Amino acid sequence: MQILEHAQQMERAGRSVVHMEVGEPDFDTPPAVVEAGCRALQAGATKYSPSAGLPDLRAALSAHYAADFGVQVPAERIFITPGASGALLLASALLLEPGREALITDPGYPCNRNFIEVFGARAKLVAVGPAERYQMTAAGVRRHCGPDTRAVWAASPANPTGTTLTPAGLAELVRACDDHGLALVMDEIYQGLVYGVGPSSVLAHTDAAYVVGSFSKYFGMTGWRLGWIVAPEAAIDALERLSQNLFIAASTPAQVAALAAFAPETRTELEARREQFGVRRRLLLDGLRALGFDVEVEPEGAFYVYAGIARFGLDSASFCDRLLAEQGVAATPGTDFGGHRADAFVRFSYTTSTAAIERGLECIGRFVATLAMSQ
Amino acid sequence: MQILEHAQQMERAGRSVVHMEVGEPDFDTPPAVVEAGCRALQAGATKYSPSAGLPDLRAALSAHYAADFGVQVPAERIFITPGASGALLLASALLLEPGREALITDPGYPCNRNFIEVFGARAKLVAVGPAERYQMTAAGVRRHCGPDTRAVWAASPANPTGTTLTPAGLAELVRACDDHGLALVMDEIYQGLVYGVGPSSVLAHTDAAYVVGSFSKYFGMTGWRLGWIVAPEAAIDALERLSQNLFIAASTPAQVAALAAFAPETRTELEARREQFGVRRRLLLDGLRALGFDVEVEPEGAFYVYAGIARFGLDSASFCDRLLAEQGVAATPGTDFGGHRADAFVRFSYTTSTAAIERGLECIGRFVATLAMSQ
Repeated sequence: MQILEHAQQMERAGRSVVHMEVGEPDFDTPPAVVEAGCRALQAGATKYSPSAGLPDLRAALSAHYAADFGVQVPAERIFITPGASGALLLASALLLEPGREALITDPGYPCNRNFIEVFGARAKLVAVGPAERYQMTAAGVRRHCGPDTRAVWAASPANPTGTTLTPAGLAELVRACDDHGLALVMDEIYQGLVYGVGPSSVLAHTDAAYVVGSFSKYFGMTGWRLGWIVAPEAAIDALERLSQNLFIAASTPAQVAALAAFAPETRTELEARREQFGVRRRLLLDGLRALGFDVEVEPEGAFYVYAGIARFGLDSASFCDRLLAEQGVAATPGTDFGGHRADAFVRFSYTTSTAAIERGLECIGRFVATLAMSQ
Repeated sequence: MQILEHAQQMERAGRSVVHMEVGEPDFDTPPAVVEAGCRALQAGATKYSPSAGLPDLRAALSAHYAADFGVQVPAERIFITPGASGALLLASALLLEPGREALITDPGYPCNRNFIEVFGARAKLVAVGPAERYQMTAAGVRRHCGPDTRAVWAASPANPTGTTLTPAGLAELVRACDDHGLALVMDEIYQGLVYGVGPSSVLAHTDAAYVVGSFSKYFGMTGWRLGWIVAPEAAIDALERLSQNLFIAASTPAQVAALAAFAPETRTELEARREQFGVRRRLLLDGLRALGFDVEVEPEGAFYVYAGIARFGLDSASFCDRLLAEQGVAATPGTDFGGHRADAFVRFSYTTSTAAIERGLECIGRFVATLAMSQ
């Protein structure tokens, strides 16, 4: 957040900034979704929806899981939420309480810790590195779970590292959680944004996980605030009550608009965007490596490269501060995502055009050259 | 909720139902707001907003407080939230923790208790009746607060009773909270919907209260899910972090649309709707009294009449079940709002046309005549 503020200050002062800190696609919401949203508003779809969401949208997500992931998820197990944030809030409220503990990866999405702690539970950090492909593993769960552990948070594709869990990794993780009686909360909000690997969901391996989904990233609907959670059968009643009490419901016009996201022509457009992300990923990844950044594990999803900066002799906060001030490139220090070797990493996003990425790489190149000279 | 489900089942079976259970205005969102929403979508206002909300909307609310309520509230103290639910969630997360306690009225908005308890705190029910005009009072606060009490929840206009706090009552309540070091969370989501009394806000009496506002009721935007919280200066940083972590932000298109709610022609329309509500209120209130319902305290706001059914010889759940089944009128039993004399009250909403209210009153009349005959 501090980097974003500095970047905005610089822009107000007339300097140009390459934004590689942003966790939001630069693509607009697909036109068909925008048009559907407009039509919904004009047709008066502005009243409360049922708290679990519009039946049509729950059914559309169920069909999406069947068609794209080959998994059968009854619509009754899918709850529409105000953003994936709403889904994480429901999972935390349902599964945790004071004195309990949840395992999360370090590095990981920074808000996870806050969702857990706001309900009085503890977030236990599980350090993950290249050996685990920055992922929660079955071995990690078995090693770190204790008598108070109730849940495990995992993410595939993950933020900030962009790595995914393999089908075998997912199956083993599910087994470890089952063995220890732990709930598995799987963040799949970057689902659909994968490059070179097939689509996957933990739902292919279990009906017992809590799966957090989102219309923000792949579907390009960030500002609409719409997500979902897939829950086990046994949790349906409790989630119904919780969502009614904590939200009333998600936005009705956003839900009607989201129905248009599954139309074939919209999917074609979204797939073209995914290919664009794939091109940018290759450009940024190769460019950073050529400049001496260390990327031991290739990111396969989301739109981030988590790049090692060990050889440049600066901690991540200083690196990001100076890169912005001296060369006008905004990136996010590893310390925003945890503590484990966080000073040795910077997250670069490719949520910007290839032209901007090329310009960014040139600026980063000049910056690391300066560092090399001063060493 | 059970009543609503039964009513819907009956309608699916072809029976007509008069809906006097609904807490949502029957009016559509004002056309100018719908048009502004459409234009926002088409202009690409579909990205994340700042987590505290769009600066223009915060400024518009600040101007609204000055123009309509004569109070100065800097925009920096106003946070836009996903519905008033989001505001109540922020207040609860900020003010409460396990072992602490908040005072709430019985009867009152049923979700309050859940917001408090989800964070591990206790909700202490303060029974209120006609003597207190069903309102939290300074005397009630002084009598019920204990060593663990951290906050007081109040509402004006209140649900289910429609009563308001007088300026003197507000000032005394503020003083009692100050004296005991308690935070005051004031639910003003029905603000603007008052009949025969002037507009009021607790903000005329203190800068230290947490005030929950909403675009749902007066502004007719329920399904858009947009509300706000006004916080004391000292809480700004903490709320900024909390809202960033728990929501990311409220819906961007909804925020842009809401700007149109303050245009003079929209306000004229909203005031005409308020007058309509006033006519319905008079019709329902007089009609219920003529049928023998007991309304000791005239509701001055919202769109509810909390009517005493003591003389009819049925508890509120049986009364509502039979009224629906035998005469096709849906209303909400007092037991949905607490425990204090809850069996002796039913909440009737006037969120339906005068024609429907007249038809409802006829049906209710036939129902209570049946009851009188069987006694």
